[in-house]
Amino acid sequence: MTRLELNILGCGSATMTPRHQPSCQVLNVRDNLMMIDCGEGAQLSARIMRIKLMRMNHIFISHLHGDHCFGLPGMISTMALLNRTASLTIHTFKDGAALFSQILDYFCRERPFEVRFNIIDTHKRVIHEDSAVTVTTFPLVHRVPAVGFLIQEKPKLRHIIGEEVNRLGIPHYAISALQHGEDWVTPEGIVIPNRQLTTDADPAISYAYCSDTKFSKRVIRNVEGVDWLYHEATYDDSLRIKARKRYHSTALEAATVAREAGVKQLILGHYSKRYLDETPLLDEARTIFPNTRLANEGLVIDLNQP
Amino acid sequence: MTRLELNILGCGSATMTPRHQPSCQVLNVRDNLMMIDCGEGAQLSARIMRIKLMRMNHIFISHLHGDHCFGLPGMISTMALLNRTASLTIHTFKDGAALFSQILDYFCRERPFEVRFNIIDTHKRVIHEDSAVTVTTFPLVHRVPAVGFLIQEKPKLRHIIGEEVNRLGIPHYAISALQHGEDWVTPEGIVIPNRQLTTDADPAISYAYCSDTKFSKRVIRNVEGVDWLYHEATYDDSLRIKARKRYHSTALEAATVAREAGVKQLILGHYSKRYLDETPLLDEARTIFPNTRLANEGLVIDLNQP
Repeated sequence: MTRLELNILGCGSATMTPRHQPSCQVLNVRDNLMMIDCGEGAQLSARIMRIKLMRMNHIFISHLHGDHCFGLPGMISTMALLNRTASLTIHTFKDGAALFSQILDYFCRERPFEVRFNIIDTHKRVIHEDSAVTVTTFPLVHRVPAVGFLIQEKPKLRHIIGEEVNRLGIPHYAISALQHGEDWVTPEGIVIPNRQLTTDADPAISYAYCSDTKFSKRVIRNVEGVDWLYHEATYDDSLRIKARKRYHSTALEAATVAREAGVKQLILGHYSKRYLDETPLLDEARTIFPNTRLANEGLVIDLNQP
Repeated sequence: MTRLELNILGCGSATMTPRHQPSCQVLNVRDNLMMIDCGEGAQLSARIMRIKLMRMNHIFISHLHGDHCFGLPGMISTMALLNRTASLTIHTFKDGAALFSQILDYFCRERPFEVRFNIIDTHKRVIHEDSAVTVTTFPLVHRVPAVGFLIQEKPKLRHIIGEEVNRLGIPHYAISALQHGEDWVTPEGIVIPNRQLTTDADPAISYAYCSDTKFSKRVIRNVEGVDWLYHEATYDDSLRIKARKRYHSTALEAATVAREAGVKQLILGHYSKRYLDETPLLDEARTIFPNTRLANEGLVIDLNQP
C-alpha cells in the first residue's frame, strides 16, 4: 500500500481552547505533505506531531476566517528560519493572497524560498494535480466565500507477479505497460493476458474536506461516493437553528450528508467550544451513519483502511 | 500591598518549540492587565494561565518581528467573539499599525470594540500613563527598530493609622490629604504631624523589559536602578560572536547590564531553541549577578517582592 494518512492538527472552531486547536490538517500522500487550513498554532502542532514541514509543498485554505489561516505567517517564518529552499504554494482566495503576501513581504522578506499563491474561487475546479492526486474545489455555504476540497488519488498501478514475469523472461522495459494493464505479446506472437501477469491495483482513495459550511444538498452531490468525508459538526442537532444562522452544521446534518452521498467513512470536527466532551455529537451522527468517528488533535488516520 | 504581578506567557525565541512559546508577558497592575509582546499562541497561553483578556486594555509591541506580534490577530478576533466592548490600545511602530489594522479590518470587521493604535518610535518617551503607572519606551539595538519598555509605578499613598485618625475625629474628607503626606490641623489650630497619622507608603516598583537587543551601554543607562529587569539571553557566552551578529545578547551580557545598572532582580528569557535546559544560562549570569532567575511559561512573579 502506498502511504495515505490524514493528520489532525486542529479540529476546534473559532475560539481556541485548551482542548482544541483551530482548523488544520496534514494529508501525507506517499511522504509528500499537503496542509488543509492553517489555524493559529499549526506550526507548533506540526512539531509536536513530528510532521516534517519541509516536505510540505502545498497549503489549501478553505476560507478567509482567522481560525483557518492565522497560523500561516508564523509557520512560513519558521520554514525560512529552517532554511527551506523548495517553493511553497498557497491555494487561497484573492484577498488572502493579497493580505498574506503583504505580511510575508514585511515579516519574512529574506526567505530563501518562493511562496507562490494560486488564486482559487468558489467554482468547482481542479486546482492542483501531481503524479499521485488531484485536488478539486467545490463550493460550501458559509458567511464568506468558502470551498471544500476533494482529494482523489489517481488510479494506481497493477501489481506485477514477479515469479510469472521472470518465468516468461519479460524484459524490464515492458514492466510499466503491464502495470498499466496491457497484455504481453511474446516474440513468437503469443498473447499472455495481463491478468496472468499482474494482480489488481490498490484502490485509489478519495477524501473530501468540508469546513465550514451549512448543510447543503450541493455539498452532498460534490462528495458523492468518496471514501472519507471530513464534515464540520459545530453543534448538536438541538442547536440546528443556531447552526443555520451561523452557517454551520450539526452532527446529524453531517451524518445526513455522509449517508446521502454514500461515503464510506465520516469524520466529525470543528466543534463548538461549548462541548467539553464530543461523544454526544458522535452518538447523534451514528444514529443514521454508523461509520462515523471524531477528529481529535494528534489523531492520525490511515486512509487506506476505509 | 497593591497587586503587581508579571505573568510569563512565552519566553522562547523565533522558532516555536514544544518547550517554549514566542515572546509574551502580561503585567497585572491592580487587576488592570497590560500585555508586552504577543507572539503566536498568546491567546491560548492566556487562557491556560486564566488571564482575563477582557481586563487587558493595552498591548505594547517591542518590535516588528513575527515572534513578538503574530498572536495579535487571533487574540483580538477571540476578544470580538467574546463580545468585548472596551477599547483596546496597541502601542506599536507605524508599519505594524498599518499592517495589523488592515488584517483586523478584513478578518475582524464586525468587532464590537474599538482598536486604537498608538504609534511609537525608538525615542525615549512616555507612551502611556494612568493612575497607577507610566510606560516609557527607550531604544534597543536590534536588526529592526526596537524598544524596551520601562513600567514605573507612581508614588503610592501613605497608610492611614485608623485608630489615631478615629481618636482625633479627623473627618473623611481630610483623609486623602493625609495619604498624600499632609499634616492635620485641628479646628483649634494645633498641627498634628503626618507621621503620627500615617505610616510609609509601599514602595513604587519599576520593571524594564528588554527583548530583543544586543548588549548596549545605552540600555544600561535606561534601566538604571529598576527593581526588576527582564533582559533577553538568547545565547550563552561561548556564542557571544553569534549573538552580536544576530543583534542578540548572551546571559553574561544580560547579567552585566543588570550589574552595571544596579537593578535589584534580573529575569532571563528569549532562549535560543538550542537549549533543552537553560540552567547553564542561569549559572553563567549568576557568576556576576546572583539575583537572577529564569523566565518560563506559566511563571507568575510577584513584583512587590524584589
